Parts: sequence; C-alpha cells; structure tokens
Amino acid sequence: MSLHDDMVAIGQRALAASRELVPLKTRKKNNILLAMADELEARREAIQAANATDIEEGRNAGLSDAMLDRLLLTDARIDGMITGIQDVAALKDPIGTNISRWIRPNGLEIVKRRVPIGVIGIIYESRPNVTADSAVLCFKASNAVILRGGKEAVHSNAAIADALIEGGRKKGLPENAIQLIRTTDREAVKELVRLEGTVDLVIPRGGEALIRAVTEMAHVPVIKHYKGVCSLYIDEEADIEMGLGITVNAKCQRPGVCNAIETLLVHEAIAAEFLPKAAELLEEKGVELRGDPAARAIVPAMKEATEQDWYEEYLDLVLAVRVVESTEAAIAHINTYGSRHSDAIVTESDSARKVFLRDVDSSTVYVNASTRFTDGGEFGMGAEIGISTDKLHARGPMGLEELTTYKYLVHGKGQIRP
Amino acid sequence: MSLHDDMVAIGQRALAASRELVPLKTRKKNNILLAMADELEARREAIQAANATDIEEGRNAGLSDAMLDRLLLTDARIDGMITGIQDVAALKDPIGTNISRWIRPNGLEIVKRRVPIGVIGIIYESRPNVTADSAVLCFKASNAVILRGGKEAVHSNAAIADALIEGGRKKGLPENAIQLIRTTDREAVKELVRLEGTVDLVIPRGGEALIRAVTEMAHVPVIKHYKGVCSLYIDEEADIEMGLGITVNAKCQRPGVCNAIETLLVHEAIAAEFLPKAAELLEEKGVELRGDPAARAIVPAMKEATEQDWYEEYLDLVLAVRVVESTEAAIAHINTYGSRHSDAIVTESDSARKVFLRDVDSSTVYVNASTRFTDGGEFGMGAEIGISTDKLHARGPMGLEELTTYKYLVHGKGQIRP
Repeated sequence: MSLHDDMVAIGQRALAASRELVPLKTRKKNNILLAMADELEARREAIQAANATDIEEGRNAGLSDAMLDRLLLTDARIDGMITGIQDVAALKDPIGTNISRWIRPNGLEIVKRRVPIGVIGIIYESRPNVTADSAVLCFKASNAVILRGGKEAVHSNAAIADALIEGGRKKGLPENAIQLIRTTDREAVKELVRLEGTVDLVIPRGGEALIRAVTEMAHVPVIKHYKGVCSLYIDEEADIEMGLGITVNAKCQRPGVCNAIETLLVHEAIAAEFLPKAAELLEEKGVELRGDPAARAIVPAMKEATEQDWYEEYLDLVLAVRVVESTEAAIAHINTYGSRHSDAIVTESDSARKVFLRDVDSSTVYVNASTRFTDGGEFGMGAEIGISTDKLHARGPMGLEELTTYKYLVHGKGQIRP
Repeated sequence: MSLHDDMVAIGQRALAASRELVPLKTRKKNNILLAMADELEARREAIQAANATDIEEGRNAGLSDAMLDRLLLTDARIDGMITGIQDVAALKDPIGTNISRWIRPNGLEIVKRRVPIGVIGIIYESRPNVTADSAVLCFKASNAVILRGGKEAVHSNAAIADALIEGGRKKGLPENAIQLIRTTDREAVKELVRLEGTVDLVIPRGGEALIRAVTEMAHVPVIKHYKGVCSLYIDEEADIEMGLGITVNAKCQRPGVCNAIETLLVHEAIAAEFLPKAAELLEEKGVELRGDPAARAIVPAMKEATEQDWYEEYLDLVLAVRVVESTEAAIAHINTYGSRHSDAIVTESDSARKVFLRDVDSSTVYVNASTRFTDGGEFGMGAEIGISTDKLHARGPMGLEELTTYKYLVHGKGQIRP
C-alpha cells in the first residue's frame, strides 16, 4: 500500500471509531481514562526505556541540550501525564448538553445540542507527553484522534500511545479511537491534513514553522496556536505599585511561555516615574531591556529597540519598551505588532479601560491583572489543548468544550413547509 | 502595482475598516443599512442598465438560459434586495452581548463577550443579489467585507456595491468597510484566500467546484456550504399519512434547493404499504423514482438506482429510493452517502427517534418534520448567509450570530500569577 492509501485507511478507521464513540456514557469514558492512567503507571519502565532510545538517537543526531530536555521523560513528567489523565476523568463531560432550545410559531421544537466534532488530528513536535495530553482530551469529548508526533520522539510516543490504547481497551475503548501515525515520513502530515470528509479538524501544536506549514498544506479546518507577542500597557492613570507588580510577574514568572509579555508600553505622562522603578526591578531579575528613544532618554542603560523588536516573541528574559502618547497609541501598537493573544492595561481610568477592552483585538484582554492567566487551568476550564490565536470556532484557551460542535435536533408533529 | 500588491492593499484597507467598525452603535449601523436600501431604490434604473450589459455580454458569450436567468435583476429581485436590507436593519444586533461571565477564586472576573470576526471575504458566482445580501449581513455584525462575485455579473455587482457604499457613506459607513474586487482576474481569488493576518474568514457561496477550489487554495479559515444530499427515513413505526405528506413536501415543494430530499429510505416492514402510495403521489408531481431491487420489487415502474445515485444531489424532480432493514441501516446509509446537511425520520417509536437523533452526523436532524425547514428564516435567525456543512465554528444555518466570534475580558485588581 502507498503512504496515501495508508493514510486514507487511518482516516476511515478513525471515522468509524468516531461513530462508536457517540453513544459512550460519561461513566464509561471515565473508567477508560482511569485505565489508561493505570497502564501508563504499569508501563513506566518500558516507556522510559523507549524514551532512552530516543534520547540516545537524538544525542547521536546532534540534538541541542534544550531539545533533549524537551524529549526527556523524567519520573515527574510521567507522573504529570498520569495525574493529567486523572484530572481529565474528573472534568465535567461537555457532550450531550443542550446549548439552547426554542419553539417556532409552527410548533417545531429546535434543540441546539453539543456533540463531538468527530475526528481530530493532532500534529506536534518533540514533547512526548503531548501524546497523552492530547489523546485524552479528544477522547473525553468523544472524538477519535489521529496523533502525529515529532520524529525525535518516535519510540516514546509509540510506547505512550500503546499504553493508552491497551489500557483503555480493557474498559471498552473502541478500536481505533486513538491512532498514532508511526511512520516518520514527512509526507504523512500532508496526507493527513488533506483527508477531507474524514478528518474534521487539525490542531498543530508546536512552533510557528510547523503551524505555517500545516496551514498552507491543509484542506481540512485548522485551529492555530501561534506565538504570543503579548503587551502590557501602563496608562497615565495607573497605580504605579500595581503596574510594577504586574510587569515583573508577566515578564519574569515564566518567560518561556506564550502568555508572558514581550513588550511594555508606558504612557508618556507616567514614564519618567514608572520606567526607572520598573527598570531597576527587571534588571534585578536579569531582564534585558530594549527601548525606543523616549524610553532610553529616561533609562539610558536600555539597549536600542529596532522595528523588529516589536514583533519579537523572545520567550526569554528580554523586554521591548516603548513610550506612547495615549491609550489609542498603545492599542494601535498592539493591533499592529501583537499576535492577538493576550494584552493588558493597568489603569484606574474607566474610559481608558473601556476603550482598551473594546479595541484591542486579542483573544484575552486584561485590566489590572497579569497576562499570565491566559490558560485553561487558570480560566477554570481544567486542562487545555492549547491557546487559539485564531478567531474561528475557538479563541483563547481551548478546553473540552472547544473540542465539541453542535447539531440541531428538530422535533415535529408532521410539519411541512407551506 | 501587481495583482498581489493590489490584493494586499485591499486586505489592509479592510483590516483598518474593521477597527473602525468595532465602536459603531447599533442605531448608527441600522441608519447606515436603511440608507443603503434607499440608495438601491434611487439607483434602480442604473443598476438595471448595468445588469443589461451583463445579460448582453452573457448572451454573446453563450451563457445558458438558466445562467442568464440567475444573472437577471428583475424589479422583483431588486425589491428583494431592498426589503432584505430593511429586514437585516430590524434584526437584533449580535455584537457586545456577554455570552458568559464567571469569577475565579483569585477574584478575577472573566467575561466572554461576543465581538465581530473582523474581515470576511465572500466569493460567489453569478447571482448579483448576493452582493447586497452578504455585504449587509457582514456589516450588521460589524465586520469588514471583501466581495468577489462572478465575472458574468461584474457590471451588476459594481453597480450594487457602489449603491451600498455611497448610500451607507451618507450615514457614516466607514471607508472600505465594504470593498468589491473589480478585476475579473481569477488569480485575485487565490490572493484573497491567502491574506493571512488580514482576512479572518472566507465563505464561498456557490457550486461544489468553487468551494473545493477555494478550500484547496486557502490559507485562511473557510466555512463551506457544500451540497445537500438529504434523506428521509420512513421507520417501521411511522404514521403513514404523515410520512406521505413529508415525503412529497421535502421532495417537491422546491426541488432545486439544498434542503430538499434526494433519497427516501423505507423500513422493509412498512415498504409494501408505504411505497406504492408514495410512488403514486410523487408520480403525480412528476417525480422520477430510482429504486434499489427491493423497492423495485414493490414498485416495478421505478428505474434502477446505481451506487452513484446515493451520492447524487439531483436538485430536480428525481428521488432515489432504498428499502432498509433497520433504523441502524438507515443511519449507516445517511452517514455514508449524505452530506451532513439535513436528514429526517418519520416514526412514532421513542427508541428509533433517539438513536436517529443521536447517531445521524448531520447539521440538522428531524423527527416527524420536513427537511425543508433548514433555513435561517425558518429557524428564526432572520437572514442567513448560507448553511454550513462544516462542523467548525458554524454548523447548519449561519445567521448574524455565526458571523461573530468572542473574546475574553478579564477584570482584576492587580492579580499576578503565583
């Protein structure tokens, strides 16, 4: 069989499995999830042995230390996968609830009911724990999933997927509800994202290059989780102490994640007071500041920011700093250079708050809080499959509900259209 | 400027316009809509003159009578556009409402608010009234729109778009909120659907070939409105008279539309009673029946159905007929050959009803009613921009609400992430 035929067959099996998932009750799904967690525990050593093979091959192939670290399945990371599954089992089942219901003048009753999407493809890179995290979220929302991990993690991913499938099967996981693409042929991704009519959605989880490649190849819908170029704007009516606290938290609490800020915008009326204090606190934390001329006039120790800096997702202890003349200028900066992820204003002004919330075109807009809260867990959704920077279907943190769709159920008594 | 540069500029202008649309109040939007309707009325003759040019050129180019009919702007069709705009002005504004709101244990208040999508591209074929219908729905939901009509209707579309833009401008329509792509160069479509970062959504409105081409070229999200291969299933516990009424209505009331049925499935236990009566009624209406062997054994006058018939959207007085052994077999037929649009069961059985509603994977599933009700107006949404056969973002009739997205507004008092 050709790769194309193989992939079509995987898609068809997933579609068939998706039909079998529809009638599954919540209790049964949760029992399956717990059995998956148990099997990961039972196979911990085998998984780590598979992982050691990946690490060994990666080291021989010259992977960077950072890459090898992402690949490594420590005991703590396996613990994380296991408790992650247990947490998903405890989450409320999103399937089968009625979103709305109304009756038409002709007596037809229309019910908008939440149902699974169907077949979801997840394409990811080197972190093998994504295998478990993605599969169980898709399953809890009664979707069949086709997983495609990075080639560096091929042995680890197979060991994890086998544990999920074998563990789940003991409690009635439908055949092919979870499938892993085991070939490392890059063409498999192209085939996967072109399975129109079988694959309902593809979610690429990884760097910008991966997401862009998937988007350009895909014929099926894709939800993108692009980078987070997040900004914090300190308004002229900001509480200075609050602004300092949020600045340090949003930049430094975990600089390598998408909801950390990359840019600090400061109103010109408050910059002379705010920026020296902020610079001192940030420098203590080892943050490199890159300022525009107005910011550097106040804090001369800052490096010079280039136009490129405003677009940059540093994911590191670096912060671009710009002085702006108004809330509108801050909004314009964010809408021009930002990535529609998360942005915040610190202000005591009602009018500045309102215009910022209304006009910043991002998934999550904050007033007087750190951008670091854009997260499924922090939002109270439980686990998340990512943070959508798209506007269609799902925006911001994607939890279980965002892995569902709806259909209309219409109840009649013989109504025909006049 | 190259076509590419032209299209990038159109996208940038639309993006800028989309920002100006965000603050517009409902009353102002409605005044703009009514001014558009007035301007269409004022320019009726000019629009019909432009349309006459299209008709003349189309006739010279050898367009079929059906194509010329779709192109023609009769007085009644212009009336329809005008009242359509007035109806949209009267619809409830979907923007700015809160979808949900909750408070986290740390005191953060999260509001999920309905907001415009941003920039929407509409790609359509020969009906010039789509120019007005699409533009005003996008505008009412505060989206900027880029229109691309069929080349046969180029003069009509320009005359309509000019009327909307000039009429709207008198009441404050933002510059470039409505743009029409005026070149007939086919490459413009490819450029449009690849304007990532500026165009948020493309909706192709037209035949399957158009939709497929757009889907394959697009790098931006697409919502598809594919064909309707709808089925009606007469269960063994059906009320025969109700089943006959729904069959005739769903096939004959308007056979050329997507929510008309193309296939009749009949339970074997009721087929000998139901089919002869149905055949008689349908033949009176001029319907050609194409049956499987079991159906033809009961009604020998039927033509023979081929495998291809089950996939066919006839859009005509033709009906494929199949006898099935169970509700499950009917569901399997629909999920295999249908187009996930609208399907119905006629039954008095609770268990058949439940399994049909649960397991048929279509946007709208009916019990004891005609499939012809899948329509924004019939659902009570007011106007619709189409009927989505996709599962992401919008499924079934797409009204104003489906032309919106949401964002999260988070209100804090200085919260930082521990």
